[in-house]
Amino acid sequence: MQWTKVLGLGLGAAALLGLGIILGHFAIPKKANSPAPQDLDLEILETVMGQLDANRIRENLRELSREPHLASSPRDEDLVQLLLQRWKDPESGLDSAGASTYEVLLSFPSQEQPNVVDIVGPTGGIIHSCHRTEENVTGEQGGPDVVQPYAAYAPSGTPQGLLVYANRGAEEDFKELQTQGIKLEGTIALTRYGGVGRGAKAVNAAKHGVAGVLVYTDPADINDGLSSPDETFPNSWYLPPSGVERGSYYEYFGDPLTPYLPAVPSSFRVDLANVSGFPPIPTQPIGFQDARDLLCQVNVSVYNRLELRNSSNVLGIIRGAVEPDRYVLYGNHRDSWVHGAVDPSSGTAVLLELSRVLGTLLKKGTWRPRRSIVFASWGAEEFGLIGSTEFTEEFFNKLQERTVAYINVDISVFANATLRVQGTPPVQTVVFSATKEIRSPGPGDLSIYDNWIRYFNRSSPVYGLVPSLGSLGAGSDYAPFIHFLGISSMDIAYTYDRSKTSARIYPTYHTAFDTFDYVDKFLDPGFSSHQAVARTAGSVILRLSDSFFLPLKVSDYSETLRSFLQAAQQDLGALLEQHSISLGPLVNAVEKFEAEAAALGQRISTLQKGSPDPLQVRMLNDQLMLLERTFLNPRAFPEERYYSHVLWAPRTGSVVTFPGLSNACSRARDTASGSEAWAEVQRQLSIVVTALEGAAATLRPVADL
Amino acid sequence: MQWTKVLGLGLGAAALLGLGIILGHFAIPKKANSPAPQDLDLEILETVMGQLDANRIRENLRELSREPHLASSPRDEDLVQLLLQRWKDPESGLDSAGASTYEVLLSFPSQEQPNVVDIVGPTGGIIHSCHRTEENVTGEQGGPDVVQPYAAYAPSGTPQGLLVYANRGAEEDFKELQTQGIKLEGTIALTRYGGVGRGAKAVNAAKHGVAGVLVYTDPADINDGLSSPDETFPNSWYLPPSGVERGSYYEYFGDPLTPYLPAVPSSFRVDLANVSGFPPIPTQPIGFQDARDLLCQVNVSVYNRLELRNSSNVLGIIRGAVEPDRYVLYGNHRDSWVHGAVDPSSGTAVLLELSRVLGTLLKKGTWRPRRSIVFASWGAEEFGLIGSTEFTEEFFNKLQERTVAYINVDISVFANATLRVQGTPPVQTVVFSATKEIRSPGPGDLSIYDNWIRYFNRSSPVYGLVPSLGSLGAGSDYAPFIHFLGISSMDIAYTYDRSKTSARIYPTYHTAFDTFDYVDKFLDPGFSSHQAVARTAGSVILRLSDSFFLPLKVSDYSETLRSFLQAAQQDLGALLEQHSISLGPLVNAVEKFEAEAAALGQRISTLQKGSPDPLQVRMLNDQLMLLERTFLNPRAFPEERYYSHVLWAPRTGSVVTFPGLSNACSRARDTASGSEAWAEVQRQLSIVVTALEGAAATLRPVADL
Repeated sequence: MQWTKVLGLGLGAAALLGLGIILGHFAIPKKANSPAPQDLDLEILETVMGQLDANRIRENLRELSREPHLASSPRDEDLVQLLLQRWKDPESGLDSAGASTYEVLLSFPSQEQPNVVDIVGPTGGIIHSCHRTEENVTGEQGGPDVVQPYAAYAPSGTPQGLLVYANRGAEEDFKELQTQGIKLEGTIALTRYGGVGRGAKAVNAAKHGVAGVLVYTDPADINDGLSSPDETFPNSWYLPPSGVERGSYYEYFGDPLTPYLPAVPSSFRVDLANVSGFPPIPTQPIGFQDARDLLCQVNVSVYNRLELRNSSNVLGIIRGAVEPDRYVLYGNHRDSWVHGAVDPSSGTAVLLELSRVLGTLLKKGTWRPRRSIVFASWGAEEFGLIGSTEFTEEFFNKLQERTVAYINVDISVFANATLRVQGTPPVQTVVFSATKEIRSPGPGDLSIYDNWIRYFNRSSPVYGLVPSLGSLGAGSDYAPFIHFLGISSMDIAYTYDRSKTSARIYPTYHTAFDTFDYVDKFLDPGFSSHQAVARTAGSVILRLSDSFFLPLKVSDYSETLRSFLQAAQQDLGALLEQHSISLGPLVNAVEKFEAEAAALGQRISTLQKGSPDPLQVRMLNDQLMLLERTFLNPRAFPEERYYSHVLWAPRTGSVVTFPGLSNACSRARDTASGSEAWAEVQRQLSIVVTALEGAAATLRPVADL
Repeated sequence: MQWTKVLGLGLGAAALLGLGIILGHFAIPKKANSPAPQDLDLEILETVMGQLDANRIRENLRELSREPHLASSPRDEDLVQLLLQRWKDPESGLDSAGASTYEVLLSFPSQEQPNVVDIVGPTGGIIHSCHRTEENVTGEQGGPDVVQPYAAYAPSGTPQGLLVYANRGAEEDFKELQTQGIKLEGTIALTRYGGVGRGAKAVNAAKHGVAGVLVYTDPADINDGLSSPDETFPNSWYLPPSGVERGSYYEYFGDPLTPYLPAVPSSFRVDLANVSGFPPIPTQPIGFQDARDLLCQVNVSVYNRLELRNSSNVLGIIRGAVEPDRYVLYGNHRDSWVHGAVDPSSGTAVLLELSRVLGTLLKKGTWRPRRSIVFASWGAEEFGLIGSTEFTEEFFNKLQERTVAYINVDISVFANATLRVQGTPPVQTVVFSATKEIRSPGPGDLSIYDNWIRYFNRSSPVYGLVPSLGSLGAGSDYAPFIHFLGISSMDIAYTYDRSKTSARIYPTYHTAFDTFDYVDKFLDPGFSSHQAVARTAGSVILRLSDSFFLPLKVSDYSETLRSFLQAAQQDLGALLEQHSISLGPLVNAVEKFEAEAAALGQRISTLQKGSPDPLQVRMLNDQLMLLERTFLNPRAFPEERYYSHVLWAPRTGSVVTFPGLSNACSRARDTASGSEAWAEVQRQLSIVVTALEGAAATLRPVADL
C-alpha cells in the first residue's frame, strides 16, 4: 500500500477517503486485527515426525554405549561434553545449554580388594570361588572400566555362615523359613531378584539375624528358563550364566547425605552414622552359574566403599516464543552400570535425535515453540535418581510454578512389540492423540495406538476400550517430579509381547552384556522401535509446548478417583462401618471433583469455539497445569521421604484405593476401635477429602468463592 | 458512525471510500488497534478516597459494637447476616458473597459455675473474693452477653496455695524466684500481662510446680500509672480498676482439633488427650483492683469448658475484569471478647465502608478492577486466628497459586497519632505510594506518609530516611497467610504517640469497657483516623488490584537480607568460625539475590517504557507475586506448627538475623563442635541458602537455565 498514490487525489476525494479510513479503522471489528494466536502447527509436527531418523538413533547409541559410563566416571564426564557439544551446535543446537554439578555420595567396590563369595568346606578350606567378573564373551566384558558386580550402598564386611535359600527375600519368605524351624541367625541368605526391592531383601534378612545376603538372577525369572551358554548372549538376547545384575540397594532416592537439600558443596550433610536407608548387612549379587554351585558354608567378603563424587546434570533449553515461563521438561539419565546400551543409552540416543531435529528447525528459523522446552540429561540415576532429585530440591519453587509436564524416556526399547506408557491421568489424551497419528513399526499398517491397544487395554466408562496407562512408581527420574513436586508426568517406552517371554526385564539388565550389539542384533534391529518412541515423545512434546490450549485433560482424573472410591466402598466399606467411619465425605468430594472437572471441560469447549484472548487461555491453562499440585500434602506421609502426592504414594495395603487409606486400614485392621491406628485411618481419610475438595476448588470458575 | 449516510454515495466515491477503508484497516499500525491495557485509574482512585466517609464508619462501628459478639454467639451470627446483607446490596454490594462455617473447639467459662478467685485466711475462711464481673460503669458491662473474664483454653480446676508474685511469668522470672529461695511447688503465681505470651505464663509456671496462675493488668503497663476510678474510663481512656483483659491462652493458632485440616464436620479430629498447646494449669485473669488486694493463701476456681461450636467466615468478591484469577485479599475478624468496639469492630467498620464505596462504583458500572478483590470477615480470631487458619487449610493451593497480597485491618485505630504498618518488604512501595497522596488527619497539611515518618523511621541505604515497616508476628489473621502460605501481607492501623503514653496497648483491650462511646469520646472523636486507615487500605487495594504492573517491589527484600547477613557476620561470625562453619555460601546467596532482584527491576523499567503485551506483563507479575512463596520450606521448623517462612519464623535467639540460624546458634552456643545442636546450625544455614538461591532463580529471566 503506497501513500503517494493517495496524496494525488483532490480534497473532496480526500475527505471521502478520510471517512473511509476512519471507518476502516474503527468500524471493522477488532478481531480481524489481532493475529491468530500461536498454536500447534500440524505441518511442523509432520516435518518433525519425518525427520526423526532411526539410523541416527542407532549411531547415537553406538557412541553413547561405546564405553562403560558409570556415574561420575571419566567417560560419564565425556558424555556430558558430548551432550553440551550437541546442544550448543550452531546448526542443530538449542538456545542454550549448560552442565551443573552436585557432590553426591556414591558407593563403589574396592579396586584393590574385590568383593568375594567363596564356598567353604567343613575344614575351612575354600571349595569354590564365585566369579568376580562376568565372562568376557564379546570382548566388552573385560577391562578396568567394567565395574565389578556389586550391591551399591551395601556395607563392607566378611560374614561367614551356612547358606539358606530364602526365595525372594520378602518378609513372608523369612517367616516361612522360621515356620519350618530353620535357624536364620548368622546364616547367609541366598535370594533371587524380583518380588521386593533390592534393599528390602537385606532389610528383611537382617531383621531375622541373617549375617549376609546374596542375590542372584534366576533363569526362570529372566531367561524364560534357558541357562546354557549356547542359548544365551551372544547367541540370543538371554543372560549368560556369568551375568550379574548390579544395582543400588539404597531404599530412598536422592543423595543420601542431603535429603531435601541440593547436594551443592555448601549444603549441610547428615552425619554418616545417621543416614537411614542403606542395607544393614553385607550384600552381594551373583550370577546364576554361581548360585547353582553354592553349598553349605559360604563366605561373603564385601569391600564396598562410600565416596563423595561429582556428578553432573546437563540441561538445554529452547526458549518459548510466547510463554517462555512455561516449561515442557523432557529428560533421561546418562549414567549406566557398564556400557548401558539399553539402560539408559537407548533413551539418550532418542533424546539426542529429538534435540537435533527440533534444534535444526530452530536454528533455521522455521519454528520456535509457544512454551519453553527443557532437555535434561540426569547424572547418577542408577544410585537412586540422584541427579534429578537434587535438581528438584535446588529449583523446587520455580519448577513447581512453571512446569507443564515432565516426560521421561529412560530405557526406550525393552522389546519391539508395543508402546507402554506410565503416567498420571491428565496426560492420557495427549499420548492418545500423538500415537493415533504415528505408524507402528513392524508389518501391517496399524498406528502405534491401534497396536498398543492390542497389548494393554482397559474398558473405560467414558471412552470404551482404550490403551491402559500404567501408574508411576519410583523406577526412574520421573519420581521426584510426580511425588515431590506434583508435576503431571509420564514415562514412555517400547516393550514386550508377554505371550512370547516371561522375562522379568530384558535379560542383560544391569550387566556387562548390555551392549550396542545386543541392541543392534536382538532388541531392535533396524531401530524402528527406537524411532517410534522418538516420534511419540516428539509429538507429545510438540503438542504440550505448542498448543494454545494445554492438552492436559483433568477430567480424566475422575475415572481414577471413581475406581479408588469403588474399591474403598467394596473392600473397606464394611470394615470402616464397623469402626463407625463414614465414607460419605469422600463420596461427596469425588462427586464434586467430577462435576467441576466436567464443567471446566465444557467451558474450555465453549471458549475453543470463540476466539479467546491469550490471557483468558493462560488463566485456564494455569488451572489445568496446577491441578496435579493440589494433590500434594507434604505432611501426609511423614515417614515416606519425598512422597507427598496423596494419590500415588507407595501402597502397602492390598486394596487398590487411595494409598494412605489402604495402608492405614491394613495396619488398623486387627486393632480395636479407638486405637491410634484407627485415628490414623481417619486422618488419612481427611487428608484425601481435603485434597479432593481443594482440587475441585481450583477447577471452579476462578472468581467463584 | 452511521452506515446509512455512506450508502447514499455514488460508486466511484464508494471505490475511493473502499480504498480508505482498506487503508484505515491495514495501514494504520496495529498498536492503535489494541486499546491501552487496563491500568490504575487515578480519577477512580480520587473518587474512592473522596467517598470514604468518616461518619459512615462511625455509624458502622456503632452498629457493630452495639452488643457483645463473642465468637459463635447469636450476635456474632447476626453480624454474619449484616455483612451478607451489605455485600449483597443491589446498590452497593459486591459481585457475590457467602458465609462458610467451620465446627471448631472453643473454650468458655461455665454459666452455672463462674470462675472464682478467693483469698483464704489462715483458718480457711474466705477473706476476700475477687470480682466475677467488671463494674457496670456505663450500663454496657452488665447483662448475660458480657462473658465473664477468663483465660480461654485454661483447664478447669480449683487449686489453692500461697500467692507468689512472679512478675511477667517469663522463664527468667521463675528462675529468679528460685534463686531467691522461694518455694514454687503448689503456689499460685500472680503475673502481669505483657513480656511473654499469655499461654507461656502458665507453661513456664507449671514447669516449676506452680498450681495455678493469675494474670492481671498493671496500671504501670496500661494506664501510664493511673488507677483511680476518677482517672479512668468513663472519665478518660484508661482502664477502670475492675477491668480484666480476656484472651486466648492457646499456644498455636487454628482450630486445636484439626491442625493442617479444615474444621469441616467430616475432618479428622485429634483426640482431646493428644492436643498440645493448651495451658497446663488453671489460669484466670483479674483486674488490678483485685490484684492489689491479694494476700497470702489464694483459692482459684476455674470452671472453663471446651465446646465444639460453629463459627463462620463471610467472604465477598468483586470479580476482576481482566485477571479474575488474581486475588487481592482484604480481611479482618468479626468476633470480639465483649462489645469489641476497637477490637475488632474498628477494622470491620472500615471494611464495610470500603466495600460500600467500591461496591457502589461497581453497581453503577463506573468501575471494575483488573484483578479480583476478595473481602473477608473471619470468625473466632480471638480464640487463635481460627477462621482465617481454617480457610487457608481448606483452600491452600488455590490461595497460594493466585493471591497477590493479603491486607489485614484488625484494630484500625489504637490512637490518633500516626499510621503504623507491619508487612513484608515487597509491600513497602505500594504503601508509600498510597500514603504520600493522602492527607493526614489532624492539624497541618502533612500527608499520612510525612506524618508517619516523624514517628517511625529508619535510614535505608537505598532510599535514605523512610517510614519503617514493622515485621509480622502472629498477632492477627495475617499469620496463616504469611507464615503458612507465603503470601506477601500487611497489617494497617493508626496508633500512639509514644511520648504521650507508655500503655502496652489501648487500656480497655479485651475488657467490657471497649465500647462505642470509648472510641467516640477518647480514641477517635470525629473518626478521622478511621477514615485515614480506610483511605490507606483503599488506595493500597486499588493499586494492587488495578495496576497493570503489580506494585510489589521484590528488590526491597535485598535490604532485609543484607541486614540479616550483617547481623550474622557481626554477632555470630566468630562463633561460627570457631566451629568451622562458613558464612561464605550465605554471602554468595544474598549477593545473587540482590543482583537478580536489581536486574529484574531494570527489565521492568524497560518494559514499562514500551507498550508491552498483557501476557508479557502477566509473566513478570507472576515472578513478583510468587517470590514470597520461594521463602517457604514446610520442613524447616518441624516443631513450629504452620511456620514455614524461613525469614519470618519466630526468633528466640537474640541475634536479629535469619530466625532458624539465630535460634539454632543460641541452642548450640554452649555445646561442643560436632554436637547435634551444631549439625542443626548447619542444616538451618543450608535451608536459608537453598531458599535464597531458589528465590534468585525465580527472579532470573524465565528462560535462563
